[in-house]
Amino acid sequence: MRITVIGGGVGCARFVLGLREHVRRTGSDDTIDVVVNTGDDWWLSGLRIAPDHDSLLYALAGVNDTERGWGRAGESERVAAELAAWGTVPDWFTLGDLDLGTHIARTAWLRAGASVSEVYARLGSRWPLGATLHPATDAEIDTHVDTDDGSMHFQEWWVRHRSALPARGFTQRGIELAAPSAGARDAIANADVVLFAPSNPVVSIGPVLAVPGIRDLLSDSRAPIVGVSGIIDGSVVRGMADACLTAIGVETSARAVAEHYGARASGGILDGWLVDETDVAAADPLRALGITTRAVPLWMRDADSSAQLARDALALASGIAR
Amino acid sequence: MRITVIGGGVGCARFVLGLREHVRRTGSDDTIDVVVNTGDDWWLSGLRIAPDHDSLLYALAGVNDTERGWGRAGESERVAAELAAWGTVPDWFTLGDLDLGTHIARTAWLRAGASVSEVYARLGSRWPLGATLHPATDAEIDTHVDTDDGSMHFQEWWVRHRSALPARGFTQRGIELAAPSAGARDAIANADVVLFAPSNPVVSIGPVLAVPGIRDLLSDSRAPIVGVSGIIDGSVVRGMADACLTAIGVETSARAVAEHYGARASGGILDGWLVDETDVAAADPLRALGITTRAVPLWMRDADSSAQLARDALALASGIAR
Repeated sequence: MRITVIGGGVGCARFVLGLREHVRRTGSDDTIDVVVNTGDDWWLSGLRIAPDHDSLLYALAGVNDTERGWGRAGESERVAAELAAWGTVPDWFTLGDLDLGTHIARTAWLRAGASVSEVYARLGSRWPLGATLHPATDAEIDTHVDTDDGSMHFQEWWVRHRSALPARGFTQRGIELAAPSAGARDAIANADVVLFAPSNPVVSIGPVLAVPGIRDLLSDSRAPIVGVSGIIDGSVVRGMADACLTAIGVETSARAVAEHYGARASGGILDGWLVDETDVAAADPLRALGITTRAVPLWMRDADSSAQLARDALALASGIAR
Repeated sequence: MRITVIGGGVGCARFVLGLREHVRRTGSDDTIDVVVNTGDDWWLSGLRIAPDHDSLLYALAGVNDTERGWGRAGESERVAAELAAWGTVPDWFTLGDLDLGTHIARTAWLRAGASVSEVYARLGSRWPLGATLHPATDAEIDTHVDTDDGSMHFQEWWVRHRSALPARGFTQRGIELAAPSAGARDAIANADVVLFAPSNPVVSIGPVLAVPGIRDLLSDSRAPIVGVSGIIDGSVVRGMADACLTAIGVETSARAVAEHYGARASGGILDGWLVDETDVAAADPLRALGITTRAVPLWMRDADSSAQLARDALALASGIAR
């Protein structure tokens, strides 16, 4: 079975780790593809940074910092101190030395003419990941945030302002010219099941869905499409998705996010939706909209609970007739 | 008095340190400009490396590794190990973490549209250097070495092959379109004295002289031009200049290098030439060619001997009537 996950960042990484664990435990030859958000990529000090991709890469490679929750384990910041002294990196953004190696290599390959997909393939070949990562698009579609203080790159809003500056909206510049990468296209078109990770619906899932062609691929897919809520009991599991949801006028609730994605039968993307047991009340109204909803424990605390969540998502998908 | 030094690398750095020390001891308001070789610059892993400039910068800033003889003091190589793992940097080239900060900042500024001169100015503003550094040219004129194994970048020949691969010649690609930088032009045209540092005559001084316009500026200058030999008693003081001299058919001797530079009166560049006391025999034949030659202790062992060498070079220059 070919399983395709759509998402990005740490929430997605944890979900894919659970999926990989589940696949390993079943001993099946199921494969995992991940269509990764590239909207939070940016240029910093002449280097191309790709936070969502790298969070996935490091987590799947087992070299991530599990205590801090992001970046590489055993990280240091000697180069960053130099870059601060040179004034090319703002003091509110942390660049680890080991992480910089990834950014330098990625930038070198891009400057030499490699596509983002080719860069993913090269970065992904260093460690056995148990999953294949594809950029949603090879185009540069960095997310910008409109605020009363003007437009700024998503990272400035997210990291510098901790998303505290009221956002009026999010745009991916140049996205109208973007197209799905060949890998993303293939992973969606030929999936046996498509799973939306519990990633930020606005800035992690949103940019993927905004790439022209992605929604058509989802709409045309014969695979069941199941999403996992990143909202539990009205709160964000991790990150600051509430500020993003508020900006686009969506309530921070498992039900509202599913309504935002919409039922595939009505032009949306979801066949099924997994909510936490605390949000069981959302199940009936969402079913009425055409989204098969199941309430299960959503917290991914360890390998067991993550694998169980993956199993629940796949079970929900397999129960959906297409 | 405005003193302009031409050269690059560690030999030049030591000479300029001596000159700065001499100026400080005299309490004069003499200023020092350095026209720096850019021929050994190169692109590595998407980053612009400028070894001759950085040796000068670090030495003048007092942050260089005096034991190792190159790079930053207190250096580490965490990023380099990552770049080796990613395969974007060959194992024969060492990139320190602190040094990488410089390369990343330089590359970021260049990618943002800054000229090499502007990059020099920004890098030079971090520490009080006591000298102003100018690139010989803003153009990219990386030196390539012709060998029986084909052409390769100078750094590959120099560092990987330790200059042991017989060289057939040296070329700066694209140099016919290069021009002196505004700073180099001003520093030579308005100098009161021009000093050639005891740098490699072929790959440090050679590329500077090969920039179209530099020889005319030297020829037109009203300042005396004095060179300091980097060869003592038939041996190279440091580095591997002998392999470079052999490749262009010049004997490794203080006399032969002066003949290679030539007397200004005969279309060359030198009015005066400082050789070591062991090479005093070169004085008469060189004087006969029109190069005023003086034999002094050339070894720069410490601040005193370096300052004395600077004093000797300036004394020789002041004795030359123009």
